[in-house]
Amino acid sequence: MTEGYGTTFPRLRDAAGAVWRDYTGHAFVERLREASLPRAAFLGYLVQDYIFLVHFARAWALAVTKAETVDEMRTCAATVDALVNTEIGLHVRTCAEAGLSEADLFETAEHPANLAYTRYVLDAGHSGDFLDLLAALAPCVMGYGEIGARLGQDVADGHPYADWIATYGGKEYQQVCREVGALFDGAVARRLGPAPETTPGWDRLCHRFTTATRLEVGFWDMGLSFAR
Amino acid sequence: MTEGYGTTFPRLRDAAGAVWRDYTGHAFVERLREASLPRAAFLGYLVQDYIFLVHFARAWALAVTKAETVDEMRTCAATVDALVNTEIGLHVRTCAEAGLSEADLFETAEHPANLAYTRYVLDAGHSGDFLDLLAALAPCVMGYGEIGARLGQDVADGHPYADWIATYGGKEYQQVCREVGALFDGAVARRLGPAPETTPGWDRLCHRFTTATRLEVGFWDMGLSFAR
Amino acid sequence: MTEGYGTTFPRLRDAAGAVWRDYTGHAFVERLREASLPRAAFLGYLVQDYIFLVHFARAWALAVTKAETVDEMRTCAATVDALVNTEIGLHVRTCAEAGLSEADLFETAEHPANLAYTRYVLDAGHSGDFLDLLAALAPCVMGYGEIGARLGQDVADGHPYADWIATYGGKEYQQVCREVGALFDGAVARRLGPAPETTPGWDRLCHRFTTATRLEVGFWDMGLSFAR
Amino acid sequence: MTEGYGTTFPRLRDAAGAVWRDYTGHAFVERLREASLPRAAFLGYLVQDYIFLVHFARAWALAVTKAETVDEMRTCAATVDALVNTEIGLHVRTCAEAGLSEADLFETAEHPANLAYTRYVLDAGHSGDFLDLLAALAPCVMGYGEIGARLGQDVADGHPYADWIATYGGKEYQQVCREVGALFDGAVARRLGPAPETTPGWDRLCHRFTTATRLEVGFWDMGLSFAR
Repeated sequence: MTEGYGTTFPRLRDAAGAVWRDYTGHAFVERLREASLPRAAFLGYLVQDYIFLVHFARAWALAVTKAETVDEMRTCAATVDALVNTEIGLHVRTCAEAGLSEADLFETAEHPANLAYTRYVLDAGHSGDFLDLLAALAPCVMGYGEIGARLGQDVADGHPYADWIATYGGKEYQQVCREVGALFDGAVARRLGPAPETTPGWDRLCHRFTTATRLEVGFWDMGLSFAR
Repeated sequence: MTEGYGTTFPRLRDAAGAVWRDYTGHAFVERLREASLPRAAFLGYLVQDYIFLVHFARAWALAVTKAETVDEMRTCAATVDALVNTEIGLHVRTCAEAGLSEADLFETAEHPANLAYTRYVLDAGHSGDFLDLLAALAPCVMGYGEIGARLGQDVADGHPYADWIATYGGKEYQQVCREVGALFDGAVARRLGPAPETTPGWDRLCHRFTTATRLEVGFWDMGLSFAR
Repeated sequence: MTEGYGTTFPRLRDAAGAVWRDYTGHAFVERLREASLPRAAFLGYLVQDYIFLVHFARAWALAVTKAETVDEMRTCAATVDALVNTEIGLHVRTCAEAGLSEADLFETAEHPANLAYTRYVLDAGHSGDFLDLLAALAPCVMGYGEIGARLGQDVADGHPYADWIATYGGKEYQQVCREVGALFDGAVARRLGPAPETTPGWDRLCHRFTTATRLEVGFWDMGLSFAR
Repeated sequence: MTEGYGTTFPRLRDAAGAVWRDYTGHAFVERLREASLPRAAFLGYLVQDYIFLVHFARAWALAVTKAETVDEMRTCAATVDALVNTEIGLHVRTCAEAGLSEADLFETAEHPANLAYTRYVLDAGHSGDFLDLLAALAPCVMGYGEIGARLGQDVADGHPYADWIATYGGKEYQQVCREVGALFDGAVARRLGPAPETTPGWDRLCHRFTTATRLEVGFWDMGLSFAR
């Protein structure tokens, strides 16, 4: 189902090995799937994820400044716009239903797991080039796509997290994953040629991708901690 | 007519003094208005302006990474999107009518006047904060708005540059100027308080604004040079 | 004892309140003082601190790019040089005595607490201006100065961490704190004027300083975790 | 004589072709060599070069933030320190002899040719990676080394520009060129492997190097313009 995410992503995912499974099969995800995730964990996660999206949008905007072609700029700019003007809005609405205003969200203290992840991604962009940044952005985009696609296969009526699953398993988000996959493949071909795994830069991309994946694990750990 | 551009912009414009008039009343502009601007000058300018817009969009994307509120991010992200997905497209179409493909445009050697201006704006952002960047972005946005509004008051039938004038004098672009003006006013109020001219940071903003205006003059000079 | 660190730092420290005491009086510090800190905790901390210094030096280098005067550049450049060519060397030597090569250090996986702190500081610089960056750099520089000065007052012969205490309590490091304090005071006066606490920008600086202090607490927590 | 500048630099220089000769054999250089360069041109150049060095030091500091190894950081940090604490000082002294204070220098309006060059180099770093930045930094470092070495072979007694020639033709500066050459070679080997010219990234480096060389030509043009 997630075969349309291009060829670069699965290579980096395979190189990440067990860490990728720790992330996409994390207890937070499994309990969300089974509808046994405590509401406090989900809401705590959602509030931090709002802050995450703010910084994730900043990182995609940084990608616009590091693109080499107008086409690369277009995809990144559209992603910024989608994050800032759509996805953040979804969080705002879900949180509002739980009694949290956007001002509440914005002023919530940022969890260290959130700081570690988002600022690592931004620094991947500042210290490296466009590919370094994409490699750090990919685990979130594609991992949520994989999780959404898997969980979306079987959602019982009245599932408490049906909206969340529908968002990431839905056609629109899956299309985003395919577009980011194509962007990544094109950017890699342009900069590393037809056999990117044989270039000296490949290890650096694997390291970026694996580190960001590791920080996703920490983000789910944080989510569970809100239920303690 | 350009009274809706807020209160920060006119203060910086007044501080820039004669340089602002050198820019908005430049011979390039006057000859364009009078329809006496050689086609070679206009096309040479348009090709460089395509490259300019690429980097100007990068600078607005940088602003997304430096914003402090989600509202600031929203306006900047929308501007990036408008530049990358609309305004650049207009240039591509006009140039295509003159026989220049987008690949031609992208591969044109960037003129030093273009490098000086665009990279100065980007560096204003990298070395300073959100306000430094806005102060360097404002002369282009608002200056074109003033020029468009003035030239749009009286355009004869068959004017060779009617499209260009209609773009910048039109409602849509004037609305962009008002939104950027409101963004700027809000950002200044948030960071410098109700009397920004009395703060130590004000001189730096004036310097940024005036330098960018000076570089606009150089950009028109470049345009005229293509007709020689 | 630490009165020579200028006037900006104590104001920000006071605004941070209890978090500052959580940092400078942390169990890690107290056990180090009492010589009861397990060696494993100290070494684990030292290896992460090597990586920390690499990124801290990067952040001071970023400050060079954001300085407004040549004098500001000089102090920041000298600090980069001291970190890269002296302080990192001290860590390399201490770790070598414990059997860890510099290659071992460089390839150690970076702890999330380390990522969170260092990348937050770098992002403070990228997203803000020179003062935002200094406010995020100050807690480490000055806090270690305060801790070193306090612990250095009474060190028994054969104290296992005498070298560490001597480094931060020593004249050379205390002089660095005074120079950074003077840099900070001058930078604040230049940008915010004579009453910085009354300016809208002051809260942002307090927030930067307090967040970095909070991340120092996390760094000590990480140190203790290595002894478990 | 300049054979010790490594292997990457001569390849990029050869790829730049005629532009490199336009730069290193520019009329400004030849007239300086023949002692026929008007004093006004030299002083005008020197004042702008002071501002250039400020921003060039910022660009080397940016390189510290983009380095991948501590050794790369060390060379870049040492270069920043040399520029800020030594080379800028030479300019200050030479200008002081001509009656210009450092405050005069710092407040001189920056020439567009200067803005174009320095901000292009900084943006090469911000938009790309460490190699992009080095490719944009190399033409100044190495070109001055080549010019200094050539002009230093035969300087008559009482030559008005003997100090300038001695600086860039001297052992110390030639050593800097060799160190930067070694840094560049190592950085290329690490990132592009043993045959960098065959990698897709090579063209981008050539483009960076050639553009920066073109901007050096503009800088000499600016110098001559001060004598008109």
